[in-house]
Amino acid sequence: MAGNSFGEIFRLTTFGESHGPAIGGVIDGCPAGLTLDLEKIQRELDRRKPGQSTITTSRKEADEFEILSGIYKGQTTGTPIGFLIRNFDYKPSDYDQIEQVYRPSHADYVYDAKYGFRDPRGGGRSSARETASRVFAGAVAKQLIDSQSPGPDASEIRITAYVSQVGGILLEKNYSELDFDKIEINPVRCPDENTAAEMMALIESVKKEGDTVGGVITCVIQHVPAGLGEPVFDKLQADLAKAMLSINAAHGFDYGSGFKSASMRGSGHNDLFVSDRGRMATATNRSGGIQGGISNGMDIYFRVAFKPVSTLMQPQKTMDKSGHETTLEPKGRHDPCVVPRAVPIVEAMAALVMADHYLRNRNSKLNIP
Amino acid sequence: MAGNSFGEIFRLTTFGESHGPAIGGVIDGCPAGLTLDLEKIQRELDRRKPGQSTITTSRKEADEFEILSGIYKGQTTGTPIGFLIRNFDYKPSDYDQIEQVYRPSHADYVYDAKYGFRDPRGGGRSSARETASRVFAGAVAKQLIDSQSPGPDASEIRITAYVSQVGGILLEKNYSELDFDKIEINPVRCPDENTAAEMMALIESVKKEGDTVGGVITCVIQHVPAGLGEPVFDKLQADLAKAMLSINAAHGFDYGSGFKSASMRGSGHNDLFVSDRGRMATATNRSGGIQGGISNGMDIYFRVAFKPVSTLMQPQKTMDKSGHETTLEPKGRHDPCVVPRAVPIVEAMAALVMADHYLRNRNSKLNIP
Amino acid sequence: MAGNSFGEIFRLTTFGESHGPAIGGVIDGCPAGLTLDLEKIQRELDRRKPGQSTITTSRKEADEFEILSGIYKGQTTGTPIGFLIRNFDYKPSDYDQIEQVYRPSHADYVYDAKYGFRDPRGGGRSSARETASRVFAGAVAKQLIDSQSPGPDASEIRITAYVSQVGGILLEKNYSELDFDKIEINPVRCPDENTAAEMMALIESVKKEGDTVGGVITCVIQHVPAGLGEPVFDKLQADLAKAMLSINAAHGFDYGSGFKSASMRGSGHNDLFVSDRGRMATATNRSGGIQGGISNGMDIYFRVAFKPVSTLMQPQKTMDKSGHETTLEPKGRHDPCVVPRAVPIVEAMAALVMADHYLRNRNSKLNIP
Amino acid sequence: MAGNSFGEIFRLTTFGESHGPAIGGVIDGCPAGLTLDLEKIQRELDRRKPGQSTITTSRKEADEFEILSGIYKGQTTGTPIGFLIRNFDYKPSDYDQIEQVYRPSHADYVYDAKYGFRDPRGGGRSSARETASRVFAGAVAKQLIDSQSPGPDASEIRITAYVSQVGGILLEKNYSELDFDKIEINPVRCPDENTAAEMMALIESVKKEGDTVGGVITCVIQHVPAGLGEPVFDKLQADLAKAMLSINAAHGFDYGSGFKSASMRGSGHNDLFVSDRGRMATATNRSGGIQGGISNGMDIYFRVAFKPVSTLMQPQKTMDKSGHETTLEPKGRHDPCVVPRAVPIVEAMAALVMADHYLRNRNSKLNIP
Repeated sequence: MAGNSFGEIFRLTTFGESHGPAIGGVIDGCPAGLTLDLEKIQRELDRRKPGQSTITTSRKEADEFEILSGIYKGQTTGTPIGFLIRNFDYKPSDYDQIEQVYRPSHADYVYDAKYGFRDPRGGGRSSARETASRVFAGAVAKQLIDSQSPGPDASEIRITAYVSQVGGILLEKNYSELDFDKIEINPVRCPDENTAAEMMALIESVKKEGDTVGGVITCVIQHVPAGLGEPVFDKLQADLAKAMLSINAAHGFDYGSGFKSASMRGSGHNDLFVSDRGRMATATNRSGGIQGGISNGMDIYFRVAFKPVSTLMQPQKTMDKSGHETTLEPKGRHDPCVVPRAVPIVEAMAALVMADHYLRNRNSKLNIP
Repeated sequence: MAGNSFGEIFRLTTFGESHGPAIGGVIDGCPAGLTLDLEKIQRELDRRKPGQSTITTSRKEADEFEILSGIYKGQTTGTPIGFLIRNFDYKPSDYDQIEQVYRPSHADYVYDAKYGFRDPRGGGRSSARETASRVFAGAVAKQLIDSQSPGPDASEIRITAYVSQVGGILLEKNYSELDFDKIEINPVRCPDENTAAEMMALIESVKKEGDTVGGVITCVIQHVPAGLGEPVFDKLQADLAKAMLSINAAHGFDYGSGFKSASMRGSGHNDLFVSDRGRMATATNRSGGIQGGISNGMDIYFRVAFKPVSTLMQPQKTMDKSGHETTLEPKGRHDPCVVPRAVPIVEAMAALVMADHYLRNRNSKLNIP
Repeated sequence: MAGNSFGEIFRLTTFGESHGPAIGGVIDGCPAGLTLDLEKIQRELDRRKPGQSTITTSRKEADEFEILSGIYKGQTTGTPIGFLIRNFDYKPSDYDQIEQVYRPSHADYVYDAKYGFRDPRGGGRSSARETASRVFAGAVAKQLIDSQSPGPDASEIRITAYVSQVGGILLEKNYSELDFDKIEINPVRCPDENTAAEMMALIESVKKEGDTVGGVITCVIQHVPAGLGEPVFDKLQADLAKAMLSINAAHGFDYGSGFKSASMRGSGHNDLFVSDRGRMATATNRSGGIQGGISNGMDIYFRVAFKPVSTLMQPQKTMDKSGHETTLEPKGRHDPCVVPRAVPIVEAMAALVMADHYLRNRNSKLNIP
Repeated sequence: MAGNSFGEIFRLTTFGESHGPAIGGVIDGCPAGLTLDLEKIQRELDRRKPGQSTITTSRKEADEFEILSGIYKGQTTGTPIGFLIRNFDYKPSDYDQIEQVYRPSHADYVYDAKYGFRDPRGGGRSSARETASRVFAGAVAKQLIDSQSPGPDASEIRITAYVSQVGGILLEKNYSELDFDKIEINPVRCPDENTAAEMMALIESVKKEGDTVGGVITCVIQHVPAGLGEPVFDKLQADLAKAMLSINAAHGFDYGSGFKSASMRGSGHNDLFVSDRGRMATATNRSGGIQGGISNGMDIYFRVAFKPVSTLMQPQKTMDKSGHETTLEPKGRHDPCVVPRAVPIVEAMAALVMADHYLRNRNSKLNIP
């Protein structure tokens, strides 16, 4: 069983290689009657697209989408939404060498091991270019979630990601101290201006050296109703972890108190229940909005760690397909740091998880409220 | 769609509450012809069972399993393997209070929010008791993987987990410096004797205070063939992350260079390919044995962070179902630290992931090798 | 991927062999809050159980079930419902011969071909004994559907099957001319007394000859809301067809005008829309209550053809595992005609399909009505 | 959970409306290394496309496909195969009326009931136009199956469908008496020339009257290895039944002795095992090549009944959305008889089932043969 579908009810299936004719996918299970704002979708794709700033790859792709089905007079019809994004800026010559040579820490070797051969152009299916399809679908999922706002007095579910670490530079503040409106005003997508400037400087210096650097993205999901998540295996944090670790270059995930919880005591970790205007809440939120695998109505927050991009603008020793040592010359166009462009991808994957669990939860009780 | 199944080809579905008649499950998709060593299965259950040492809960359960189907003359027949483990040591009176009261950082409130009501006895389905079914199935999965050893000159796939942190006490050594045979000789399941003694002392002191403490488990999977993992969503690390975050109290996962990779440069992170006796290998292994979501033949290793257990032997302020403040009196029997007993659970979930991907990979190529 | 699960949201996974310790299963996805009437479940099992009349096998099984989880204070909790039915009346000696010999038109040979070997006791997993698990789950599904009656003025969804043919004896009447209350008053389960008597006589005469005979079951589902069924592959009739053809010995399925529609003209087949007390209805119902794969609110009705039972009380020529000709001596206990006992199985499978599609349909629209 | 995917390992997901920009889909799970003959695929689409003869709809569509991914240098790469077929010949004005009016025995009403509204242009998603995506995927599945021919002395798996009934005209011959090479030489796709001529005359006469007529397709699958099919729910006949009943206008399915088996006795129905050149075979084949849900190596054969097309070139009384009576004027372009063009669709669905079960069966045994 191949692995190109995500979600159970709100289900995305994607296809496409970096340098094939197009990437795209099918969303099956989006309920009928959702009015889609297509400009909002394009805006999400624009946040991910290459060439958006000096610290991203220079590949030129407009990343404009075409919707092929599932929409009538601006509304979803309940039938599958087919969509595609054409590839335009091919430079196949960049990839002559890598048909024979395994780039270090890339997927070239494992694709050969698994499938017997591979499409080497731009990394083929293993390129992060496929994440554009996720961003498209995530943008639809966001609109689905927004439409399900529980009422006039409740706020919309809001998914916000930002860069909280680049290399050794950490944003030390808690998300509650940040102004989320400032995330998009700098190319790094860090809402703290001073830290953003430091991160920017680091990425530019790393880029000059032909090197790359890793980072961390923090994501916050607010105004989530209690009850989302399906024990025992499809706990909400389990599906979020899978979603995040399925993103290229992601190497770690934690939520709530995360890895820090390992050094804590229960008496200092437990979140005591309190009443918040008649609604159950917790005085602290080390649980990260999830208990027993189910959302409890508090903010969900988590971190995703990304390794430094593997493509370097430096020569590297490696092996070719025949098992001989060789030197890989730097070619191709790549990001010196993946996290600024990964922000909309993290949000998209979070939106897919939330939309899916939102719909799954409709069957938890005999009587729909 | 409910969430009590795990895996696509080798698929486990579980049932059971902490204080119901039994827990158990069905394994569907185990190929025919596997000779099952039932004693090995019981040994894994014994590693997880309560009451095994002074630092675990005093609940008494033999955790003996009954296999109901799928085995004939000691071999799997290809039909589903039904199994159950009876519950014996009920103390329902321990749970009189919690039918009305929400225990802090437990799943009581969210189960009520999701399902409208809940089985309060011992936490019902949210109790970690359900993980015994995972350990049973993981023990079958381990035997399946072992049986697929690629030949006389290759070693068996070996999954080994151990405790690498309890509270502030860290095992600083890399797994390659450890003697895995020493894991089971102490109740903490830390293979370094000095660190184990410190951890033991900490847990006992925490227990005396009626408190609990978190920890970290490290898991290593050795002798994995290259090619396991299904891009783009079912990457091997994505499924491992989901598996681990589905375990009660797990709050974080990272693999290979993990969260540390965020502060690294590409030039210092890339694993250069080398030849190891004619076989492709890498000089370093910051990729943690997985590239592009697919195993590359090097050791897979990852960490799982666990929060401190939420049940305290101290009074705690909380809320009841009617929204009134109340005080929760300490009752029930629980572990002061979850990680020693979680070691076999981590191994079991890893085995389920590996067995499933082992079988899934049989369909990657047109011609089976 | 093995095939022992049925349904997407209301999902049954079964296990068990004819002569193993038990058969049973897990229902995952039954919403919380359903009050289960356990006696009703037992009554359904009693309709299927062996030894209930002179025209069924003499094997003695009480077919009493044990529920292991998922119920608290008489209500479903939303967690998986584990259940089992113990096997008691083994006669393994009956099956000494068939470990080596392939019974004609049985599954012995194909199980060997597929799995390499098989559990020969009573046909193992291929025995119709596994359908008891389906009947248990179908009885739960029926209660779920019943509970979702759309209001005081609407009738409950009602699933009714009956025997409409045994060998050459056909019940010529349309279902609307029959009194469904008369189905259970004779062992054949045909609601027309005269036809039932003829069928009974035929079965008894066939039994005396050591022979068996086929038959047809008609099933009617009334008071179905419009909107159930998921185009384009999971059309309601497609899932019903699969459900029915998954029953042992079933060889055909048609619904509405069925095979007769092939010889009709469109002008004589189309169902014209009319208004029935303000509700959309059709003047005729050749569509069998399903159009475009979706229920239209009219009665759903279909037929299932069953071949004659393969076990004869006559010697038969056959082959053994080594490819030598041999003679199979008549042994074991079997039904001369399968359809009377298949009536509750057909109803159970129909109930599983309807319950699943009932829950699936909750996500068709953005706003739940 | 929506229903636009088919298959477990070889899995097709489709999208597209009759008059939207395009129809298409994604095939996930096709193993790597299959050399695809694109002309063969186009030939299958040509067999299904409109406007191919005087007895098919006059809609003009070239039905040329574009493959967007998953192929490199002519071979499948193991990554998903995205494909699309553009729609060109819109006549939206044909459908002005039906936005408000429910066509008898069409899906207009049920789509409104299920989704709240619908895309009325050409029937939207409920149009049989979506089956072109099935034919594309079925053509890939056929090539996969062909490539798995068990060896030089074994013949290729061969799937052949033909028209065996139109209205009252039946082809009385058994498939073994027919010359399959004659199927494509007449527009009706009946291999018996005299019967074909009669069917042709009937369809043309029915067309002149503005009426339509039903029919039956028989399908034969030859040279199938023993062992395909997954008990107990995913029996091979169950998945074939679902596949066939998911085709628009299909109203019945039976296999082997089918509905006739209901009037037979076991002694006259059982297929006795014999040796066929050292290979297990049966003297007769009333089992239709499937026993216990698993292929036994004999020919698989089954029938699919189709109702007459619902669109008539006659005025019909009906209701509009507001519940008022109205008259539907004949408009649009449709087939007077669906079976000739349904022949490649039946084959395609059969190929999808066989390819999927072929791959699923790779995991039946511990050791792959």
